[in-house]
Amino acid sequence: MIKKLFKKLSSFVLSLFLCCMIALVSNANKEVSKELYLGIDIGGQSVKLGVVDSDGKLLEESKIPTDINATPEQVVESIVNAASKFNAYSKIKHVGVGMPGDIDLDNGIVRFVPQLSKWKNVPLKKLLEKEMDRSSNKIYINNDANTAAIGAFWVDAEGKATNLVSITLGTGVGAGLILNKKLYVGSSGSAGELGHIMIDPDRNAPKCNCGSKGCLEAFLGEQYFLVYAKNYLTVHPSAIINELSEGDTSRINGKILFDAAKKGDKTAKELWNYYGEKLGILLADTINVLTPDVIVLCGGMSQSSKYFMSSALSEAKKRSYSSAFATCKIKTTVATSKLGVIGAAMFAKQNELE
Amino acid sequence: MIKKLFKKLSSFVLSLFLCCMIALVSNANKEVSKELYLGIDIGGQSVKLGVVDSDGKLLEESKIPTDINATPEQVVESIVNAASKFNAYSKIKHVGVGMPGDIDLDNGIVRFVPQLSKWKNVPLKKLLEKEMDRSSNKIYINNDANTAAIGAFWVDAEGKATNLVSITLGTGVGAGLILNKKLYVGSSGSAGELGHIMIDPDRNAPKCNCGSKGCLEAFLGEQYFLVYAKNYLTVHPSAIINELSEGDTSRINGKILFDAAKKGDKTAKELWNYYGEKLGILLADTINVLTPDVIVLCGGMSQSSKYFMSSALSEAKKRSYSSAFATCKIKTTVATSKLGVIGAAMFAKQNELE
Repeated sequence: MIKKLFKKLSSFVLSLFLCCMIALVSNANKEVSKELYLGIDIGGQSVKLGVVDSDGKLLEESKIPTDINATPEQVVESIVNAASKFNAYSKIKHVGVGMPGDIDLDNGIVRFVPQLSKWKNVPLKKLLEKEMDRSSNKIYINNDANTAAIGAFWVDAEGKATNLVSITLGTGVGAGLILNKKLYVGSSGSAGELGHIMIDPDRNAPKCNCGSKGCLEAFLGEQYFLVYAKNYLTVHPSAIINELSEGDTSRINGKILFDAAKKGDKTAKELWNYYGEKLGILLADTINVLTPDVIVLCGGMSQSSKYFMSSALSEAKKRSYSSAFATCKIKTTVATSKLGVIGAAMFAKQNELE
Repeated sequence: MIKKLFKKLSSFVLSLFLCCMIALVSNANKEVSKELYLGIDIGGQSVKLGVVDSDGKLLEESKIPTDINATPEQVVESIVNAASKFNAYSKIKHVGVGMPGDIDLDNGIVRFVPQLSKWKNVPLKKLLEKEMDRSSNKIYINNDANTAAIGAFWVDAEGKATNLVSITLGTGVGAGLILNKKLYVGSSGSAGELGHIMIDPDRNAPKCNCGSKGCLEAFLGEQYFLVYAKNYLTVHPSAIINELSEGDTSRINGKILFDAAKKGDKTAKELWNYYGEKLGILLADTINVLTPDVIVLCGGMSQSSKYFMSSALSEAKKRSYSSAFATCKIKTTVATSKLGVIGAAMFAKQNELE
């Protein structure tokens, strides 16, 4: 009886050993040749794409202008055409796409994109599958605020954060949430609309495109901030900003305000200070509600962080729980304009693992 | 060789079968006699306790006043004394405690409780272990906003929600988050401070105990709402409220405003309408940021939901994304004052499973 039991046990141990060996060998193979993913970041002005390895390293990249008058089919054709020129194109495993708008994540359908009027209920996943014509490639599509969070998780937090919030400061304000190391999209798929927290109930508060008034986005989105800046400039004129915009106020944008601050312009610095104060409220809300270990700022406006971070941190500290504030690192992404491509590719990788 | 392999395989299948049988039998046993848990809900005025089964059903309950002048040791002694009178006391498996304040979840230490000045760095877990003197009982302690969320998950959502937010409308405002069916406490353990989202930047906005101004709690917490109500009453006097409070404004509380509204008092209804408008902003923020499938309102003030729910829903709908608003059910807990005890007990059960 004991002998029999021993025999059974030894056969079980042997199978376990074999399983471990197989796992080790397959892992070793993975180390030798890393899986490659295609990341596509579709924006209102350009489509960025690139080949990314399984560690989030961007190996090849490319950029084509977004033709807002083209049909989605034509846009997809030009994307695949650009992708096919990558040296590693044939080795790509899966494809991730990040883009603005309302997206049916389960079916890869782009319901609506504010910046691209021709994109209504577009079966983007199917279009890409057809155009790429490679049945082994799986295609995953998500909102660019979510793919940015995944990019920030791999690039800025080096895959080590537990709870990370990425805040995209662009034309509008978006946010992506990684909670307990996984993308959190909530029950309706649209979680993370931190930009629509109302911070000013005044009837004269700036209107937001969402239909409400006084939302954080109505202060922090570039388009709204520039309205404030232009009004401010009528009372506090700046020779430097006037020179940089060649006397045409319609040319003033975030980049010009950044350049003016860089040249030491007082008015530009005051404007960024004001921007930081409003951003500080958003940071405090994020910290109080989600207490993440990392917040990563990204998007075009985040490039001016040098001029707004100090007032943002001071305001955030004042308005948030001290232990939660102390736990949270607040940084600006190091991936700048490449975050979208890397995030989209890593979203494909993450989906493959689940 | 094949014979050997077959032998190994059959022995493996046999072990698998035995494992399954053991699992089935133990499961059947579970069905016959459900595990019992002790839930303890420590508040500033009373300590509620009860025996709860593994389905969240409250079988026995008890209540003792909180002696704010007693030492934590004395409070623990009277709690255990009350618990020992339960018929099922000897059958209790584990113990869950929910209480306000700053709690070190990992070590069961109560760092600080605003309502109980003698509770500073109290090793509550150890004190309870010592007093109960039953090594088989494990003790789990959490903030009462979190145990309320667990209670709401089992009682109000019948264990079926994926993402649930409970909002406790009491003296202050707390919130507990169940995300992807698990309690979410964030990286510093204090996630869910929705009450400290700032909604009014005006320098005359009401001050909040957190040190900031214009927080949602400074409008929705009972203590703050009553300040507003008393000011409102000086301009809009009410004979009914005056009668119910016996002419003494210091006696006005949420219950009196509820009773006045029930009697059809116009001023009381206007006050609850105002309360609903502010609550609607909190609901919209919760929906926009977390898009839960359920929001459960609890705490003393939630008992007046009949008079504020309509304005709250209308404001929340106006301020939130329509698909996220449509996905989210908003309800008032059916467990009323028993939610804390049930939640604390189910927190012990949940911990046991992890």
